[in-house]
Amino acid sequence: MSSDRFSFNQITAKHWELTDLVKGLVEAEVDKVALWREPVAEYGLERSAALVRDAGLTVTTLCRSGFFQLDGWFDENRRAIDETAALGAPVLVLVSGGLPEGSKDIAGARAHVADAIAQLVPHAAAAGVTLAIEPLHPMYAADRCVINTWDQAMAIAEQHPVGQVGVTVDTYHLWWDDTVLPKIEAAGDRIAIYQLADWITPLPAGVLTGRGLPGDGCVDIRAFHAAVEKAGYTGPIEVEVMNEELWQRPGREILADTIAGYRGI
Amino acid sequence: MSSDRFSFNQITAKHWELTDLVKGLVEAEVDKVALWREPVAEYGLERSAALVRDAGLTVTTLCRSGFFQLDGWFDENRRAIDETAALGAPVLVLVSGGLPEGSKDIAGARAHVADAIAQLVPHAAAAGVTLAIEPLHPMYAADRCVINTWDQAMAIAEQHPVGQVGVTVDTYHLWWDDTVLPKIEAAGDRIAIYQLADWITPLPAGVLTGRGLPGDGCVDIRAFHAAVEKAGYTGPIEVEVMNEELWQRPGREILADTIAGYRGI
Repeated sequence: MSSDRFSFNQITAKHWELTDLVKGLVEAEVDKVALWREPVAEYGLERSAALVRDAGLTVTTLCRSGFFQLDGWFDENRRAIDETAALGAPVLVLVSGGLPEGSKDIAGARAHVADAIAQLVPHAAAAGVTLAIEPLHPMYAADRCVINTWDQAMAIAEQHPVGQVGVTVDTYHLWWDDTVLPKIEAAGDRIAIYQLADWITPLPAGVLTGRGLPGDGCVDIRAFHAAVEKAGYTGPIEVEVMNEELWQRPGREILADTIAGYRGI
Repeated sequence: MSSDRFSFNQITAKHWELTDLVKGLVEAEVDKVALWREPVAEYGLERSAALVRDAGLTVTTLCRSGFFQLDGWFDENRRAIDETAALGAPVLVLVSGGLPEGSKDIAGARAHVADAIAQLVPHAAAAGVTLAIEPLHPMYAADRCVINTWDQAMAIAEQHPVGQVGVTVDTYHLWWDDTVLPKIEAAGDRIAIYQLADWITPLPAGVLTGRGLPGDGCVDIRAFHAAVEKAGYTGPIEVEVMNEELWQRPGREILADTIAGYRGI
């Protein structure tokens, strides 16, 4: 993949200050970044938008909203859509949330996600923001995201026009599924964003922050590259890695290793 | 479910000595047990067989063999089949193993599992042992078991006669899959054993020993009960829970809570 499609997802260098991150990206001649809501809010939405714009950076996605099991999900997600638009990002990534406290009704939770997204589509469409449903690995089904397979995400996306709701292809979440590659190939314009992380073991407690840079694990990322290419996806390729050990390192080093991992695939 | 279908899986009280376990089961009027290879080997295969037989216990499964990515898998699995027969157990549970060291070829690993099982079937059939392929949760795909869905397990099982190769229904591994219940209902005699554990969070490091007793988590176990019943499965129901905290408690208490959890579904 050509390096001009590379986008650095902010969470990969979680502790890097936004101003330093922007400086580091410019120095490394990276022109795309995916931002996260919390650090953007901390620096200020308008200030963040100006900072990245003035640096010539394109914001590929805003991560992340969703969490439809929580009270207030409607207003919170509308705010996230507005933030996405304010940053000039075309895509808001949705992590759909886990089961409500004490619930054993995962089918009900999944139906609620579909309903919630339908309620948000008019606002997103008006803002010019694509909602990118992210199927998360089944190990997050209880506490983080009840949408766990490509089929589940696509079934919801296809209830809406292309461009309004799409799906996030993240190698970390999908690599185990022996049926997924041909489905990605057939997904065409439904692919809203393509993200890379590698699978490494052992998993840490909580299983959130043990992901590997591309090439460091057992995922055949080239096979995913081929599938999204066959789908006709020509958009950015984000590297989004959550790793406690990686996070302890200086941002510049993380960025350099992330670029190297990306190029090495 | 009637309590006479209950089988206590030995791993649920990992540190309970085999002789004490057998005594405890008899006192609790439990007549079925699932054994594990390591403690059986430690006590001695023939001695173990005599111990459970003399106590009037039925061994529902031997757990576990498989691990087909390791050198020596063929001989090791033949030994496991022989041990299963020696214990009078009808079923050997197979955990198929993860990726070979350094491999990114999960499709190849899956094909090897199918091939390995085909090579073991003649020996298993001759010994009167059913091989029960266990689809393990996708979070184990890299390091423990590349067979992660019901469909994958069934596709391998169906290459062989019913009774020679079947599938393990384990609620812990399958609960997240929105397509699995009708597939279980349609599986008929392919269900070789039915195991219960509940999903609790947060997951511990390594994600192996954080399972819950039935009723303690978010799995709709009644829905699984209904599905296996619809399939016509009338065999034992094992409770198999790996939980570091639970293991610290006295065996008798674990057994009592396990029975209570089982009855409470």
